[in-house]
Amino acid sequence: MLKKQFVIGVDIGGTNIRVALVDEKGNIIRKIKESSGEDTVEKLINSIDTLSEVKIDAIGIGLAGVIDKEERVVKKSPNLPAIENKRFIKDIEERFSVPVVVENDANAAALGEKWLGAGRESENFVMLTLGTGIGGGVIYRGDLLNVAAELGHITVEAEGLSCPCGNNGCLESYASARALVSYVVEALEKGKESIMREAYQGNFYRITSEDIYRYALEGDSLARDSLRRAGKYLGIGIATLVNIFSPEAVIVGGGLIGAWDILAKEAKKEAERRAFPQLIEKTHILPATLGEDAGLLGAAYLALKFNETEI
Amino acid sequence: MLKKQFVIGVDIGGTNIRVALVDEKGNIIRKIKESSGEDTVEKLINSIDTLSEVKIDAIGIGLAGVIDKEERVVKKSPNLPAIENKRFIKDIEERFSVPVVVENDANAAALGEKWLGAGRESENFVMLTLGTGIGGGVIYRGDLLNVAAELGHITVEAEGLSCPCGNNGCLESYASARALVSYVVEALEKGKESIMREAYQGNFYRITSEDIYRYALEGDSLARDSLRRAGKYLGIGIATLVNIFSPEAVIVGGGLIGAWDILAKEAKKEAERRAFPQLIEKTHILPATLGEDAGLLGAAYLALKFNETEI
Repeated sequence: MLKKQFVIGVDIGGTNIRVALVDEKGNIIRKIKESSGEDTVEKLINSIDTLSEVKIDAIGIGLAGVIDKEERVVKKSPNLPAIENKRFIKDIEERFSVPVVVENDANAAALGEKWLGAGRESENFVMLTLGTGIGGGVIYRGDLLNVAAELGHITVEAEGLSCPCGNNGCLESYASARALVSYVVEALEKGKESIMREAYQGNFYRITSEDIYRYALEGDSLARDSLRRAGKYLGIGIATLVNIFSPEAVIVGGGLIGAWDILAKEAKKEAERRAFPQLIEKTHILPATLGEDAGLLGAAYLALKFNETEI
Repeated sequence: MLKKQFVIGVDIGGTNIRVALVDEKGNIIRKIKESSGEDTVEKLINSIDTLSEVKIDAIGIGLAGVIDKEERVVKKSPNLPAIENKRFIKDIEERFSVPVVVENDANAAALGEKWLGAGRESENFVMLTLGTGIGGGVIYRGDLLNVAAELGHITVEAEGLSCPCGNNGCLESYASARALVSYVVEALEKGKESIMREAYQGNFYRITSEDIYRYALEGDSLARDSLRRAGKYLGIGIATLVNIFSPEAVIVGGGLIGAWDILAKEAKKEAERRAFPQLIEKTHILPATLGEDAGLLGAAYLALKFNETEI
């Protein structure tokens, strides 16, 4: 068995494409980050080209969306419609003459955290990525559970806010970065007091989740309330996931965890109140540690493992 | 390898204990059914004694509650407090000199349906048992997923009805037999019109879920509405489970499925509206076929498989 030495790990999200050359130990040798959009596939190919300065053995791609692994196409990607139903995987395979593995980006992030991050010590954990939307992945007996794990789309309010997915009351509509911003903007539009009102002078559409966290640290009550509310719903979602998966850990990553301290306090309180005590008392609720590299490292791991026993 | 020939399958629920002598093909040779309560363990031992007319090779027990499989005790069983934290498994093992395997009853029911019921053709399915409460089990790659799978305790209404488990808005509080009866009794107490009002002459506590189904068939609008409401919430729960597990099937069993036609119509409509279309279009929503024997047959299966490769 000849082990692989270098692979390409890719993470394609709604906003960015991250492509990295990764060695068999998970060291990132070099990384390219670009914005995603209509020309995502072209940018991806160019980046792989640039990084193929050493011989690569495989390519792993994590991307946001529902993937048909048999047909190797993305059936649905609300934040990246440009890649839906396109057969670009095969093109990349032929172009670079190496196997290409595809996985949902949040599943890839879970694998990344299992390999090198907060999940290293856990055989069974649930990963939630709080970004524009909310993604999920489940590690079971040390490996990725091969299910959709669309954990942002569990219903927490039967008749709640409408979600782009078509459902009402999805966790994502209450605890994602987008949800956080919507909540704040709506409150400002309704006249709620906040230092953000003057700071943005009516241009509320410019507010980001990072801004909200910054204003929360400055003591702004709307900013703090909005984060607490997101944390509370995160806790409701975690309770449901703990009652289902009885995991050793729930690991939370994604852009929103800059505000981890506020979010975690509320989320833990709510999850402890709601989940079965015999289960939640054994569950660690932890922040992810790989940051924006979790997805591409997990994708690299899949590439390294691909057909490992057959080589 | 000497295969086992006869085992005892046991299902201990909040209302009944069912104990059966089962052969290696899943035929029930003889079955004893008794009410459960304070003397559950005694009754269980007597029933096993009675059924041990042939040499038995193992005993499998499914029971309602959170089980610590390492310590082999029931940590929590809201409907059967008499067996909580009792070390009766070891007693039974010593008494009958055969191995005893314990599993959550809804997990056992899922295994039963996989072995001989509605799940025979599916490698990945979710089972929901609608009884007094709601139990769940997940079959993944042909085998039981070794997680709590307390699928009745997923939150569907963040600030909804309080559940005996301590949470608010659990699926169980909206779609179980107990939830159905509570809803009807409350409506009657508030003065809602119904033929049940005269039929029970104020003794509403005598109403059962079977009664409600019967009156629904007679056209009573309160009875019909209550079943439609339970079906709607069942569909909300199913949508969440489909988005998580992307199963081939969701199989619904338990006492409430006498009313399957009304429940299923609402549940399917709601699940189709809410779950990811790419996932729900591949999911069959089916009634269980083993009835009250699902749990004890699943437990018998576990007994037959126990240490199979080591014998």
